[in-house]
Amino acid sequence: MQYPKIPLAQTIVLLCKAKNIQHIVISPGSRNAPVTIGFTHDDYFTCYSIVDERCAAFFALGIAQQIQKPVAVVCSSGSALLNYYPAIAEAYYSHIPLVVLSADRPKHLIGIGDGQTINQTDVYKNHIIYTANLSSQMDAEFKNRDEDEPAILKTLENKLERFLGRKQELQQENETEINKALNKALSKRGPVHINMPFHEPLYELTDSLSVNPKIIDINKRASKVDDFIYNECLDAWNSATKKMVLVGVNPPNEIEQKWLDELVKDNSVIVFTETTSNIHNPGFFNSIDTMIAPLEDDDFKALQPDILLTFGGLVVSKKIKAFLRSYQPKQHWHIDRDYANDTFFCLEKHIETTPNNFFETFLPQITHFVKSDYKATWEQVRLYRKEKHSAYLNEIPFSDFQVFETVFKSLPNNLALQLGNSSTIRYAQLFDIHKSINVFCNRGTSGIDGSTSTAIGCAVGQEKQTVFITGDLSFFYDSNALWNNYIPNNFRLIIVNNQGGGIFRILPGNKDSENFENFFETTHNFTAKQLAAMYGFQYGTAANATQLKNKLKDFYKESDQPKILEIFTPRTENDDVLLNYFKFIK
Amino acid sequence: MQYPKIPLAQTIVLLCKAKNIQHIVISPGSRNAPVTIGFTHDDYFTCYSIVDERCAAFFALGIAQQIQKPVAVVCSSGSALLNYYPAIAEAYYSHIPLVVLSADRPKHLIGIGDGQTINQTDVYKNHIIYTANLSSQMDAEFKNRDEDEPAILKTLENKLERFLGRKQELQQENETEINKALNKALSKRGPVHINMPFHEPLYELTDSLSVNPKIIDINKRASKVDDFIYNECLDAWNSATKKMVLVGVNPPNEIEQKWLDELVKDNSVIVFTETTSNIHNPGFFNSIDTMIAPLEDDDFKALQPDILLTFGGLVVSKKIKAFLRSYQPKQHWHIDRDYANDTFFCLEKHIETTPNNFFETFLPQITHFVKSDYKATWEQVRLYRKEKHSAYLNEIPFSDFQVFETVFKSLPNNLALQLGNSSTIRYAQLFDIHKSINVFCNRGTSGIDGSTSTAIGCAVGQEKQTVFITGDLSFFYDSNALWNNYIPNNFRLIIVNNQGGGIFRILPGNKDSENFENFFETTHNFTAKQLAAMYGFQYGTAANATQLKNKLKDFYKESDQPKILEIFTPRTENDDVLLNYFKFIK
Repeated sequence: MQYPKIPLAQTIVLLCKAKNIQHIVISPGSRNAPVTIGFTHDDYFTCYSIVDERCAAFFALGIAQQIQKPVAVVCSSGSALLNYYPAIAEAYYSHIPLVVLSADRPKHLIGIGDGQTINQTDVYKNHIIYTANLSSQMDAEFKNRDEDEPAILKTLENKLERFLGRKQELQQENETEINKALNKALSKRGPVHINMPFHEPLYELTDSLSVNPKIIDINKRASKVDDFIYNECLDAWNSATKKMVLVGVNPPNEIEQKWLDELVKDNSVIVFTETTSNIHNPGFFNSIDTMIAPLEDDDFKALQPDILLTFGGLVVSKKIKAFLRSYQPKQHWHIDRDYANDTFFCLEKHIETTPNNFFETFLPQITHFVKSDYKATWEQVRLYRKEKHSAYLNEIPFSDFQVFETVFKSLPNNLALQLGNSSTIRYAQLFDIHKSINVFCNRGTSGIDGSTSTAIGCAVGQEKQTVFITGDLSFFYDSNALWNNYIPNNFRLIIVNNQGGGIFRILPGNKDSENFENFFETTHNFTAKQLAAMYGFQYGTAANATQLKNKLKDFYKESDQPKILEIFTPRTENDDVLLNYFKFIK
Repeated sequence: MQYPKIPLAQTIVLLCKAKNIQHIVISPGSRNAPVTIGFTHDDYFTCYSIVDERCAAFFALGIAQQIQKPVAVVCSSGSALLNYYPAIAEAYYSHIPLVVLSADRPKHLIGIGDGQTINQTDVYKNHIIYTANLSSQMDAEFKNRDEDEPAILKTLENKLERFLGRKQELQQENETEINKALNKALSKRGPVHINMPFHEPLYELTDSLSVNPKIIDINKRASKVDDFIYNECLDAWNSATKKMVLVGVNPPNEIEQKWLDELVKDNSVIVFTETTSNIHNPGFFNSIDTMIAPLEDDDFKALQPDILLTFGGLVVSKKIKAFLRSYQPKQHWHIDRDYANDTFFCLEKHIETTPNNFFETFLPQITHFVKSDYKATWEQVRLYRKEKHSAYLNEIPFSDFQVFETVFKSLPNNLALQLGNSSTIRYAQLFDIHKSINVFCNRGTSGIDGSTSTAIGCAVGQEKQTVFITGDLSFFYDSNALWNNYIPNNFRLIIVNNQGGGIFRILPGNKDSENFENFFETTHNFTAKQLAAMYGFQYGTAANATQLKNKLKDFYKESDQPKILEIFTPRTENDDVLLNYFKFIK
């Protein structure tokens, strides 16, 4: 086997392998050649080549989101790594492990006017869980040169000895830093940055390794919660008659079904889930906005919980956040091994374990359910809303709302479903989804910038068919996502094209002015037709209910190309249909 | 006239107007609605709507590069502003004034799990010349709430008074910070960041202003250099027989022609320029690589200057940098009002004024030229190379090299010529260009990421026709640049499509492996045809010399659409043609 000649490049590759980081997304460049050579010459690694770094990082994020293990992205120096930043922030807030390997110049070549050279040290500072700023062997020489020289070091041999010693030190420091960064990504589920200064020549190969880096194990923290916390929780739980469980973004299959089923048996407990919660039980309340949008002060007081128990990541529903901030629970507990947001300004307990561990210990200790009509009361409301929801669907015209209904009903079981941000994820909350479908959305920063790339990463990172539903602006924003040689033929992309940022028509702006159309809705007449042709997708369209049903019939079936279905909805009617829905269901 | 109701939004808009910041590039969003409303309701401003923030910022950079005044970019909160970062780094290193106006949530809503919320404070820290982290009026309330309360403040009236006082203080602090940021952008030619927390409601309008912000003038520094520095320079200059002037990226028409002509009269002076230097005289040496690529140790010693005088921004030629680092001048002086890089590790003087000011004072003081054959010697080499250059062109096949020759010859006078990075800018150095053509390239970070957007900004920011020449990877990377409603019909885009990153074939990698093609050259079969159709460009192609000449005939003429000409060159032959050139001209 051949290796890059630069010891630091060997070290990086060996340590990634030792830590089982298998997927490597590489963007072309010269400064990163040493690691590109290292990764691509070792069959252990699955390497992907993606030119646009913005897409590359979101693609890597999509893989990591599926395998729940770190994925590495590799880029050259300069603005390349700034294009990673949107995906890094998403990984940071979604707790997805990414390892950013950026090539750099040795220190003495930074800030002197060389090309593709920026201040890479700590560049992601606001959104990174660890940064390893490594040194190159050239740094040893240059440090040496700059130091004051005591008399004893005046001979050449002494200088050389000191230089070699310093080189050895730097290698050890680098090994420690790389270990720390990778361990952090593995244990704390977030993005880490390893900045790698390489000196020329960059392309040289060798037949043997010159390093044997130490491997530092992760200091595994037992995620055991103290008994007194369980006891405190139990006391409060057993005496509270109104308990609300609210679940944000949550990976599928994280929590044993028997604990979820157990929660439903308790009449003092309401479980609110979102499409992205990936937990299911017929007793859960899975359409939060439909439930609470029509409520008024008295209703809110009745719904206000004594205890709010949350787990998972960010919550989509703005309405539930506004409600719980105004009608705060007496106690808010959040379960997560590492992180807790004080979303409602009343966080009392961060229970530092996994939800599954918590339930396993906690639920069997509950021997008696407190008497309560909390759930029953709201179950009535839920049934009423369900009827109204169905009735409303029968009377509305072809629109975004109807399209989401139809598309959601058409989805085959056992999918990975990726949702775009903005309108798409909000509409998705209003409809039921089969429990065999795993749902994902970039809710860390909730950006429209990388959803297509993430969805393609998802399609590559696991076995199930991936369906991606997106709005038009989000799709065009990330059009370079399709510049990707790894898209499986069963990948399906559905664009709900309402000719602009439809969500702005739902917000309180003055929507009938040219100013509004230009600077908020940003209307356009583009379609995905040419992009589909360019990137080898089969392409179909629908502009009414019949066409849509017809097009969906075979859409998910096997094919020798990935497919795009673009659905055109009436731009100026969608907003009324949605806003009237919330009036109608009252 | 109508204004946004939020005082901070009024303040921003009023101060931008007071500072003559006229061009405002807006990306759609809700959190930034207050300023979007403010800018778009005042006819003073020219507003542009661009959805993809990466393109929006490069587009703004292209305008600012032309008008040499700050241009503002406006975006929502969250990952939106991270997409600005590549252009901000480019502005930072190219000394182009950009004003980034990012909307944010009030402080108490950050870090608690709300959507589109990241750590925006100081997020561009490594590449920004000023950051103004403003406060919202909500911050006054929340600060108040958190403070320990002395007994005297217990009454409601006192609380209110204190709150209003704090609000007033925050307004004043904000005004000062905005002034500082805008003044810095105006005086120090770089990107500044103003982070604007806005609280809901965001869309409300009002008929009258509620603020009257103070306007702080720029403290204009006289850019006068001390006489003793001129005297030192004169002494050194008059006694040195080998003086080299090297000019990097330099805006057109910055330096009076008479001073440039004066430099040429001195036989002890060689002036090396690049395509991006935008200065012209028949006595200048305008093809650095052609001159020095074939040199050997003895030649380098003969060329090694006593004094190196530089001005302008970054230098493209790697060969001249390598030469001057190995054969350092005795003194390196750099002329720039604000910035100086120690590119050759021997910077002795940073002469803090404009080149024009320097020459105006300095050159008339030189009464006698020192006797020298420095220029004459190298003039001989230059003539020889020029002949070899012409001879080589007569014998090469259709290739990147030949295409650049043909295209450069075809360019009409009085253009703005924008060049892509990587191969394009390097080839461009090898050919003459008419002095009426203004040449630009993003050499700050030398990225391939935003050149098309920059070129379109250039086309919008001035009157001349803009021609943009780019490689294929750079073009596809920034394909969203074409999603732009402001592209003038006389805009011309030339893609030299060599089916991948042709530059990698020139670098020392092993170019005959699949690994190389996948991970370095990143070969592809895409063309711009579909993108041209999608975005309303007239589209033509050429794949040999005859086709190219035919297509170029009418290419620059008036039309009712902008045009793309895509030239296909033989991927596996281009590198040999270029590498043999440097052997041939020896």
